[in-house]
Amino acid sequence: MRAEIIAVGTELLLGQTVNTNATYISTGLAELGIDVYFQTVVGDNAVRIVQAVEIARTRADLIVFTGGLGPTQDDLTKDALAGYLNRGISIHQPSMVKIENLFTSRGMHMVESNRRQANQIEGSDPLVNDAGLAVGNALIVEGTHYVLLPGPPREMKPMFDGPAKAWLRSVMGEERRLFSRLLKFAGIGESSLEQAIIDLIEVQSDPTIAPYAKEGEVAIRLSTKALSLHEADSRLDQAELQIKERVGQYLFANEDIPLEEAVIRLLRVTGRKFASAESLTGGLLAELVTTLPGSSGEFVGGVVTYTNEMKQQLLGIPLSQLEGAGAPGAISESTAALMAERVRDLTDCDFGLSLTGVAGPSEAEGKPVGLVYFGIAERGKPTIVHKAQLSGTRDIIRVRSVKSLLYRFWQLLSAEQPGR
Amino acid sequence: MRAEIIAVGTELLLGQTVNTNATYISTGLAELGIDVYFQTVVGDNAVRIVQAVEIARTRADLIVFTGGLGPTQDDLTKDALAGYLNRGISIHQPSMVKIENLFTSRGMHMVESNRRQANQIEGSDPLVNDAGLAVGNALIVEGTHYVLLPGPPREMKPMFDGPAKAWLRSVMGEERRLFSRLLKFAGIGESSLEQAIIDLIEVQSDPTIAPYAKEGEVAIRLSTKALSLHEADSRLDQAELQIKERVGQYLFANEDIPLEEAVIRLLRVTGRKFASAESLTGGLLAELVTTLPGSSGEFVGGVVTYTNEMKQQLLGIPLSQLEGAGAPGAISESTAALMAERVRDLTDCDFGLSLTGVAGPSEAEGKPVGLVYFGIAERGKPTIVHKAQLSGTRDIIRVRSVKSLLYRFWQLLSAEQPGR
Repeated sequence: MRAEIIAVGTELLLGQTVNTNATYISTGLAELGIDVYFQTVVGDNAVRIVQAVEIARTRADLIVFTGGLGPTQDDLTKDALAGYLNRGISIHQPSMVKIENLFTSRGMHMVESNRRQANQIEGSDPLVNDAGLAVGNALIVEGTHYVLLPGPPREMKPMFDGPAKAWLRSVMGEERRLFSRLLKFAGIGESSLEQAIIDLIEVQSDPTIAPYAKEGEVAIRLSTKALSLHEADSRLDQAELQIKERVGQYLFANEDIPLEEAVIRLLRVTGRKFASAESLTGGLLAELVTTLPGSSGEFVGGVVTYTNEMKQQLLGIPLSQLEGAGAPGAISESTAALMAERVRDLTDCDFGLSLTGVAGPSEAEGKPVGLVYFGIAERGKPTIVHKAQLSGTRDIIRVRSVKSLLYRFWQLLSAEQPGR
Repeated sequence: MRAEIIAVGTELLLGQTVNTNATYISTGLAELGIDVYFQTVVGDNAVRIVQAVEIARTRADLIVFTGGLGPTQDDLTKDALAGYLNRGISIHQPSMVKIENLFTSRGMHMVESNRRQANQIEGSDPLVNDAGLAVGNALIVEGTHYVLLPGPPREMKPMFDGPAKAWLRSVMGEERRLFSRLLKFAGIGESSLEQAIIDLIEVQSDPTIAPYAKEGEVAIRLSTKALSLHEADSRLDQAELQIKERVGQYLFANEDIPLEEAVIRLLRVTGRKFASAESLTGGLLAELVTTLPGSSGEFVGGVVTYTNEMKQQLLGIPLSQLEGAGAPGAISESTAALMAERVRDLTDCDFGLSLTGVAGPSEAEGKPVGLVYFGIAERGKPTIVHKAQLSGTRDIIRVRSVKSLLYRFWQLLSAEQPGR
């Protein structure tokens, strides 16, 4: 099946909103084994919506709309498509009841236009909206499949993942679906990783091997079409093994988890905890880790010592270490070690992690932008400090600093694990 | 002038990459007064690229391509368009020299395909690429304007903002351009803001008034087309004044800066500093503030006391305050006050800010997800604690907590300012 996604909304054409819906729907369709050939964005204009549908019909069997199902006069998708297909509009009663109840229960006066959200194109299947009021639609006319989803991602995602995918599966019947596995790497750049397996990427057609990069982490997606997970897994396992033989030391997960989660999981096995002392990253390490629910078992907190005074006041590092002629300075191996050790002892943790360096935009202590020291102080062991010269903007240097430290920490923890 | 953006790249259709380029280019074209009517995404396939161009020509005077200018066999934009326009390919010599020099200087063997990046469609104007190797192209054929930009945002953005916009201005001549002003609000929801000025939005056509929301902040964009900034400003000033009369107390900036920057600017005026003690937000406040270069003059750092032990060990809050029968608990007004006061005194700052609450996904201390206390402890003044019941996912609650605190802090600081 060939698909086209039509996102409806003038805010997209003005650049006020990023079209993340098209990305989300594309990913989901690929998982169903449906190829997306085109994505189109059109404004809130009935004539141009119809124009886009006319074109899409000539090049797709499935057209997925997102946006334009709301209550306002700008929400035109159902009306425009119904007009184009020469169909009427009917009312989806359960949605109408839901809309009326909502306003009644809140004691609010309902504006008449809210009823529009219960509209459906005559003869279509309703797609329930658990996160909002506008009902979705799905229908087949002259061999073309139409699926209408709302625009707000909060409403679109559950409707697409639930009723829309179920509808698509039912009309597609048994078909080979796409199964993917994500291999996640750290400590290696995208180009080095690609270089190491370039022959596999080029030769291998099933599963396909596609590298791609997010900031500070690199991933390889293995994809294969199969009738069952079992059938897919045997092929994916084999490809994973081939890649592991080349670059296994950088592989931290074979599923879509961030590096910080891989670290937390390793700590959990042995019941250990860590704390952080951050300078240039200003709390980013702590923030990333605490984004994970339940991380308080492994991460207790720490300090953000953004200024030298704070390194002295919160961590007790002597000012003579940080400033003045002949002092190592705040951006130094020995300060990184002290920060890691002090925060470990202060918090009575198994590990103290530290980050100090120059995020930019200008140099500091006569040291260049991107120079970063990060320390790992384990109780009862010598403290380790790594030095890196990173490149990029201020934000990128901060993210890369944290990911570099997490990678070294993950390496240390995974080396202890039996069977690796 | 009517424009269409064609983003070329199979990774977009697979959902591996979000089409942020279309957003960026749309925004930039709007600023030039050029209306974007359609955005299209097409894969790395010459036939389908040509198909997309054929359609775009019928509905746009300007077609902006992004992607497909690189060295690989998948990079087809120039070849496909040249073929469609029945033009040859020539070499842009300066780009060729640059490519050859780069490989020579690195002592690397140049793969032949790299030369492709110096290709240009015969008769086109080159658009220099300061951030990469692939030269851009711009040309006019039979009244249609074509602009070809690379795909990587790091290369696309400077080429678009620099040589591409200059080329567009030169071919457009003197025209009324779009001028925008962003009014940024905090402490008020999008719907309440919209409600307060709904009559203005509906009546006002020049400048147009468009509200939109980012997480935790709301903004209104005023836009007008004018020949000069001066002409635009007088109209924008008047609209701003009308809006200020209604909701001025929530307006923290009339330019695109985040709330944390507005806070930092107010502190800078009086040379004061603050520190943070974060629990549920795990360093997010510190991280947001230190994202701003030069914030170390106003923000010194702080502590992330994610567990009760840390609230005790790093801030000296007695465990009897935090745990046990009859204790207020970590999530309480008095703990928020203590956290703010202790971190202020520990760091010897003018202000201590604190955040404690339940980010979720499950309740804590028998208190509901989304309950948040945030404290502002100013030296020599009574400590203020605000309580909020926020909704959303874990991530959203964390962001909203920080923004709510920053709003209260901004309010306090701006109330001191003369002339407000």
